[in-house]
Amino acid sequence: MKKIPRSASNDYSADMVNTRRHFIEKETNTSLPHLSHFSLPPESVAGNIENFTGVAQVPIGFAGPMTVQGEQAQGDFYVPMATTEGTLIASYSRGMRLTREAGGVTTTVIDDAMQRAPMFSFANAREALAFGKWVKANFALIKQACEASTQVGKLRDIEQYAVSKLRWLRFNYTCGDAAGQNMVSKATRAGCEWIIANYPAPIAHFVLSANLDTDKKHSHLNTLHTRGKRVVAEVTLPKALVKDVMHCTPEALFKQRQYSNMGAMMAGSISNGAHFANGITALFIACGQDVANVAESSAGFTYAEITPNGDYYFSVTIPSLIVATYGGGTGLSTQAECLRVLGCEGKGSVNKFAEIVAATVLCGDLSLASAVVADEWVSSHERLGRNR
Amino acid sequence: MKKIPRSASNDYSADMVNTRRHFIEKETNTSLPHLSHFSLPPESVAGNIENFTGVAQVPIGFAGPMTVQGEQAQGDFYVPMATTEGTLIASYSRGMRLTREAGGVTTTVIDDAMQRAPMFSFANAREALAFGKWVKANFALIKQACEASTQVGKLRDIEQYAVSKLRWLRFNYTCGDAAGQNMVSKATRAGCEWIIANYPAPIAHFVLSANLDTDKKHSHLNTLHTRGKRVVAEVTLPKALVKDVMHCTPEALFKQRQYSNMGAMMAGSISNGAHFANGITALFIACGQDVANVAESSAGFTYAEITPNGDYYFSVTIPSLIVATYGGGTGLSTQAECLRVLGCEGKGSVNKFAEIVAATVLCGDLSLASAVVADEWVSSHERLGRNR
Amino acid sequence: MKKIPRSASNDYSADMVNTRRHFIEKETNTSLPHLSHFSLPPESVAGNIENFTGVAQVPIGFAGPMTVQGEQAQGDFYVPMATTEGTLIASYSRGMRLTREAGGVTTTVIDDAMQRAPMFSFANAREALAFGKWVKANFALIKQACEASTQVGKLRDIEQYAVSKLRWLRFNYTCGDAAGQNMVSKATRAGCEWIIANYPAPIAHFVLSANLDTDKKHSHLNTLHTRGKRVVAEVTLPKALVKDVMHCTPEALFKQRQYSNMGAMMAGSISNGAHFANGITALFIACGQDVANVAESSAGFTYAEITPNGDYYFSVTIPSLIVATYGGGTGLSTQAECLRVLGCEGKGSVNKFAEIVAATVLCGDLSLASAVVADEWVSSHERLGRNR
Amino acid sequence: MKKIPRSASNDYSADMVNTRRHFIEKETNTSLPHLSHFSLPPESVAGNIENFTGVAQVPIGFAGPMTVQGEQAQGDFYVPMATTEGTLIASYSRGMRLTREAGGVTTTVIDDAMQRAPMFSFANAREALAFGKWVKANFALIKQACEASTQVGKLRDIEQYAVSKLRWLRFNYTCGDAAGQNMVSKATRAGCEWIIANYPAPIAHFVLSANLDTDKKHSHLNTLHTRGKRVVAEVTLPKALVKDVMHCTPEALFKQRQYSNMGAMMAGSISNGAHFANGITALFIACGQDVANVAESSAGFTYAEITPNGDYYFSVTIPSLIVATYGGGTGLSTQAECLRVLGCEGKGSVNKFAEIVAATVLCGDLSLASAVVADEWVSSHERLGRNR
Repeated sequence: MKKIPRSASNDYSADMVNTRRHFIEKETNTSLPHLSHFSLPPESVAGNIENFTGVAQVPIGFAGPMTVQGEQAQGDFYVPMATTEGTLIASYSRGMRLTREAGGVTTTVIDDAMQRAPMFSFANAREALAFGKWVKANFALIKQACEASTQVGKLRDIEQYAVSKLRWLRFNYTCGDAAGQNMVSKATRAGCEWIIANYPAPIAHFVLSANLDTDKKHSHLNTLHTRGKRVVAEVTLPKALVKDVMHCTPEALFKQRQYSNMGAMMAGSISNGAHFANGITALFIACGQDVANVAESSAGFTYAEITPNGDYYFSVTIPSLIVATYGGGTGLSTQAECLRVLGCEGKGSVNKFAEIVAATVLCGDLSLASAVVADEWVSSHERLGRNR
Repeated sequence: MKKIPRSASNDYSADMVNTRRHFIEKETNTSLPHLSHFSLPPESVAGNIENFTGVAQVPIGFAGPMTVQGEQAQGDFYVPMATTEGTLIASYSRGMRLTREAGGVTTTVIDDAMQRAPMFSFANAREALAFGKWVKANFALIKQACEASTQVGKLRDIEQYAVSKLRWLRFNYTCGDAAGQNMVSKATRAGCEWIIANYPAPIAHFVLSANLDTDKKHSHLNTLHTRGKRVVAEVTLPKALVKDVMHCTPEALFKQRQYSNMGAMMAGSISNGAHFANGITALFIACGQDVANVAESSAGFTYAEITPNGDYYFSVTIPSLIVATYGGGTGLSTQAECLRVLGCEGKGSVNKFAEIVAATVLCGDLSLASAVVADEWVSSHERLGRNR
Repeated sequence: MKKIPRSASNDYSADMVNTRRHFIEKETNTSLPHLSHFSLPPESVAGNIENFTGVAQVPIGFAGPMTVQGEQAQGDFYVPMATTEGTLIASYSRGMRLTREAGGVTTTVIDDAMQRAPMFSFANAREALAFGKWVKANFALIKQACEASTQVGKLRDIEQYAVSKLRWLRFNYTCGDAAGQNMVSKATRAGCEWIIANYPAPIAHFVLSANLDTDKKHSHLNTLHTRGKRVVAEVTLPKALVKDVMHCTPEALFKQRQYSNMGAMMAGSISNGAHFANGITALFIACGQDVANVAESSAGFTYAEITPNGDYYFSVTIPSLIVATYGGGTGLSTQAECLRVLGCEGKGSVNKFAEIVAATVLCGDLSLASAVVADEWVSSHERLGRNR
Repeated sequence: MKKIPRSASNDYSADMVNTRRHFIEKETNTSLPHLSHFSLPPESVAGNIENFTGVAQVPIGFAGPMTVQGEQAQGDFYVPMATTEGTLIASYSRGMRLTREAGGVTTTVIDDAMQRAPMFSFANAREALAFGKWVKANFALIKQACEASTQVGKLRDIEQYAVSKLRWLRFNYTCGDAAGQNMVSKATRAGCEWIIANYPAPIAHFVLSANLDTDKKHSHLNTLHTRGKRVVAEVTLPKALVKDVMHCTPEALFKQRQYSNMGAMMAGSISNGAHFANGITALFIACGQDVANVAESSAGFTYAEITPNGDYYFSVTIPSLIVATYGGGTGLSTQAECLRVLGCEGKGSVNKFAEIVAATVLCGDLSLASAVVADEWVSSHERLGRNR
C-alpha cells in the first residue's frame, strides 16, 4: 500500500493538503468535500498535527448564560460546547438557568500542578532509600537544573513513591497558562540529567516515565494529589427554586445522591458524579484543549448537603482538570474564537477558564440529576405507588 | 443578561444560525468568522445539538497505512485522526509502519454489551433478595417488555448487584451498529415498567440509574464486564524489526513494561498502557463518535511476552470501547466521510470500526513505549553508565 | 543454624512438642512456660499446624447479649471475642445494648460462593474466545468432573474474565459448612484436568491460579461477586433511643456518614464503614476461623437513611465473609467451645454464624460512629462554637 | 436476657473470671473447660480486654530457621506462627530454607508513619483553602500542641486532602516501639484543639476522623503514603537453587508473575502478591499484635526480575505494616515469650520485628508461587502437552 504523501520542504502548504486529500480520495475511493472545507490557514496547524489534510466540522452551540462567582471568572458567560449528543446543550442550559437564578456558581481553583514522574532503579531497596534522601537534600539544585530549561515552569516540589528497589520521583510544576505536559517533560529530563551526573552512587536504571505520572489515563494518585487544576464549583439552591425549575425537591435530589454514592462505590467508579465528561469534552473540543485529557479530567467528586433551612448545597470537585489558554490548540481559528467569547485570552487567563469548566460541569450534573429524579417522580410514580 | 435566541418553528435554519452568531458576537464583543465557516447543512445537526451556531474546525491528518488482520477489518487502512497535539500522528504512523512490516495487527472483538442499571430499594435486604430471585425467574417476560421498545436492541442478560436493601439490575444489550445508550435507557425503562406493574410485593423506591451503569465515567465494573465492545489487538514483532524500526530491543521494551506495570499499580491507574486515550480521542472526533466516552473507552490493559525465539508479543485490551457507525454524530458531513475512508459505512460495520480503533491504539502504545526506551538508551546511557 | 526437630513417625506426641520447645528455648536462650501451658490434646492439631510447640493464649471476653432476628440466627447471643485491644468489647457491647433495645439486628445471607480461578493462555485472543465458548457449552460435563472430587461442594457457575490471549475461569461453588478453599481447589483441578483432556484445540498454558480468585487478599471483583458469604445486617433505631444510649442524634450520625463516605472515596478505601475488621477478627480468633481471611472479610459497605419519622436506618453489607463451622480450626478445643456458646455446632450452622458475625459488625460500627460524633459534640463543641 | 456479670471494684480477679465463665456456661448450656485453662495472670489483661473470661488456645509452631540480612534483624530466626491452616508452616519453612541457602533475605524499613486524619468543614471551598494555608503556616505551633500530649510521638508532617468545602488533615507521626493508634489520636486531638482555639476564622464543623485515615481498613492512600512501617524484603535466588529446592525455574516463576500481575490488575486487587496475609496473621497472633490490622497490613506489592545471569531477583513491599513491640498485647504471657524468641524485646526493637515479618512474607510468597508453578509443571504438563 502506498505511503501518504509528505513534503520535506513545506508540508503545510495548501498544495500539500490538496495532494494528500486527493491521495486519500483515490486510494479509498471516496470523496471528501466537507473535510476539505475549512477557513483555518494550513500553516497555522504546523506543530499541532502531521499529515494535515482537512478538518472535522464539529457542531458548536452555546449554552447559558451562566453566572459565575469565581476568583477569576466573574459575571455571565455564554459557554461554547462542541458536541453531537442531542439534548446535551439544552440540559446544561437548564442547569445554568437554575444556578443563575440562585445567584450564580462559586468557583475556586484550590491546587495547581503538572508533573512528570521518572523512575530510578537500584541494586536494592536500601540504595533506593539513600537515593531518596539525597534527592530531598539536593532539592534546590535539582530545581535550578529543571527551571533552567523553561521560562515559565516552576518546580514546586518532588514527591517520592517507593516499591522494591524502585523509586519514582513525582516532579510537580506550575506552568502558567499552558497545560505544560511538554514543558515538564523537558524540565524533568534536565533535572534528571543533573541528578545522574551528580549522584555519587550507582544508579542501575533510569527512565523518564513509567506510568506513575499518570499521563492520559486516570489514576487515584492524581485524584489525591492533583494533575492540572483542582477546581471546586459550589452553589446553594433555594428549595422553592428547585421545585420551580427542576420539578423536584432537595430531599429527592439528596436521596438520589445517596443511591448514587453507593452505586459508584459498588461499581468501583472514579467519580460519584453524573456526567462530568460531557461538559468537559464539549468545552475541550470547542476551546482547543487536548481532548485526550478527558481521560483524566472527567474524574471527580460530588458533595451535597441539605442546609438547616431546607435548601440544597451542591458541589463538584474536579481534581485533575488539565486546561490551557496558551499553546496546544488554543491558538487555532475557531478554538481561539471560543476562548475569546469566554474572555479567556491573554496572559493569566487559565484559572478563569478552569473555573468556567467547573461551573459548567456543576450545571450539567444538577440538570441530569434533576431529570432522573423528576422523571421517576412524574411518570413512574403512579405505577410505583400501586405496589406500596 | 440576555437569553440566547431560539426559534420555536425552525431552530436549524441558516437564518437562526446567523442570528445566534451575531448575538454572541455582539454580547461578547467578538468576531467569529471561522466558527461560522462550515459546509455541513445546518438542518443536518438537528437531533445532535441545540443552539447550533457554527463548527469547531479540528485539524485532521491521516496516519498509516496500517495493516489489520481482524475478523471484520481486513487489509490496509489510512486512519483519520483529529488532534492538535503535535507529533501524535507521526508517532502513531511509526507504530503502524512497525506492525505493517510485522504482518499487521490481529484484532478480535471478544465481548459486546451496552447497559442501563436501574436500582430498586426495599424495606430490607430480605425483600431485596426475594425481588432478585423473582427477576431471575421472570427474565423471559422482562426481556419481551424491553425488546418491544426497540427494533435493534436485544437484551442479553441481567446482572444483579446488591448492597443493604438496595438492588441494582444491570441490563446488558447488544445494539447493532449504534452505541446504544439511548436505546438501552428506553428499553430498560420499558422493562422496569413491566417489573413495577407485575412484581407482586412492595417496592420502596425505583430509579432508572444510580451510578452503577456507569455512564460517561470509568468503573472497575465496566472493565470486568465490558461496556460497548471489548476488543483485543495483538502483534508479534520480530526481534530484528524492533531494532531496525524502533532502535531498541524486545528485552528493553519488556523491562520497561515491568516498571510500567508496577507504576500503574502503585498509582492506582485504570490502565497499565501508555496512552490509549490519544488514538481513541483522535479517531472519535474524526469519526463522529460521542467523544465524552473517552472517559470510559480510554481504560485498558497491555500484556506483553518475549517469545521463546526472542520476538516481542504485544497486545492491548480495551474493555469498554463505546463506538458506533450508525446514529449520534456518525452521519454528519466530515464524520461520515472519515467513516467512509475506513470502509465503516453501512449495516454491520461497527465491529470493523472497533477493530480499527484497537489496532490504532496498539500502534500508538508501541511507538511511545519505544520512544521512551530508546531515548533513554541513546542519550542518557552514557551518563548513566558512568555511575555504574 | 540447627533445624527444628521433627519426628517422621509421630510429630504430634507430647514428647515431640516438649522436644521442640526445649530446642527453641535452648537455641534462643529463652524460657517458654506460658506457651507450653495448654489443655488441647497435641494430636488434635494434626492437619492444622506443623512443628506444633505450644499455644498463643489470646484473651477472650464476651460481649452482649446481642439480639438477632436472622434467618438462621434468632434470639440472644453472648459473643466471644478474642482481642488485646482495650475498650473493644465494651464498645461492641454498647452497640449491642442499643440494637437490643431497638428490637434486635435483622440479618440475611444474600449470596454464597467460594472460588478458584484457573487461567488458560492461548496463541491469541481469538483462540481464547473460542475456548470460552466451548467451556460455556460444556458446563454440565465440567461440573460433573468437578463434583466427582467432593461430596459437599457444588459447582454453581463459571464466570469468565478475558484480557489479551488469557482467559480466567472463575469457578463458583457452595461448600456446606466448610469455608471450602481446599475443596474448591481440588474440585477445580479435577475440572481443569477434564477440560485439558477434552478440549479439542491447543492450550498454550494452564495454571490453577493467577491472582484473580483472589485468595487471602481483597479485590474489587470479590466485593462485586462475593467470596464466602455475602451478608447484610440491618437495624432501625428510634430517635429517642439514639439520644438515650448514644448521646447523639440520627442527624449527627447521618452527617458524619456523609463525611465518612467522602473520606472513604477520597482515600480509595475498600470500605466506607468504621472498623468491620475489629469484630470480625475477634470472632475469627475465638471461633477457629482462618484469621488470615480478615484480609478479605474486612471489606464492606455501610448504608444509612433517616426515616420519614426521624429514626435511623443503619446497615452493613459484608460481601466476602469467609466463615466455617466445619473443618479448619473449628474443631479445636477453645474454638469448638466458642462455637457451641453461639449454638453454631453441627450440620447447617454456617449461615447462622455468618449472621452473628454481621450483626456484631453492625453493633461495633454503630458504637464507634456514635462515639466519634458524641465526643465531638460534647467536648469540642464549646470551643468550636466560639469560632462560628 | 441477662447481663454479663461485671465487678465495679476489680473486674480482673480470678473470681470474676470464674463467675463470668459459670454465667456463660449456665446461660448457654455449655461447658468451657479449655477456655478456662490458661496460665496468664488475669490482672495482666486489664487494659487489653473487658469481660475477660478465658483464652483462645491458638496452636503455635515454629518455622525456620530463617536468615535475615536486615538493618536491624541480623542472623537466623525461628519464627513463631499461630495458625490452624495445615501446611502453612511447612510451606513457609520451605521458603525459609530456600532463602537461607541463597544467603538470606535482605530487609529494609523505608518509611514509618502512623496517622489520624481529622476533617474540617467550612462555608465554602475558598474558606477551606484559606484554612489549609493557615495550617501550613502554623505547622510548628500545631506540632508543639500535638507533641505536648505524648512523650514518644513525634509529628512528622501534615498532609492535606481537599474536596468540596471539606479539608482533611492527615497528621503523620513516628511512635517509637508502639503501633501508636491511640497515641496519635490523643496528640491529634490536642493539635486540633489548638487549631480550633486559634484559627481566626469560622470553622463550620470538625470531626477527629472521617474515614480518610483509614484505620482498620485498606486504602490506596495508605499504600501510597504508608501506615505503620513500609518494609521491603529482597532476595536473589541462584538458578540452580531454584531447581534444587523448588523444582522449577526462574523463567517459570517469572512467567507466573506476569499472569499474576495481570490477574491482580483485572480483579482490582490490593496486592499482586500471593498470600501476604497468611504469614502476617500467624506472626501477629503469636506476637501480640493487633490482629485486626491484618486488614491494612496484608496489602502490598511483589516485584521480580530475572538477572542477566539467569538468577531470580524477588521482592515484597509491605506499605502499611502496623507492628509494635511495646503496648497493646505485646506484654502478655505467650506473646511476650514469642517476641523474646525473636529477640524483639526492649527499646528500639520494632523495626527489627517489622523486618522479620517482611522476610517471613517473602519466604511464604516464594514457596506458594513455586508450588503453583511446579505442580502444574509436574502433574499437568503431560496432559497439557498432548494438546499442543
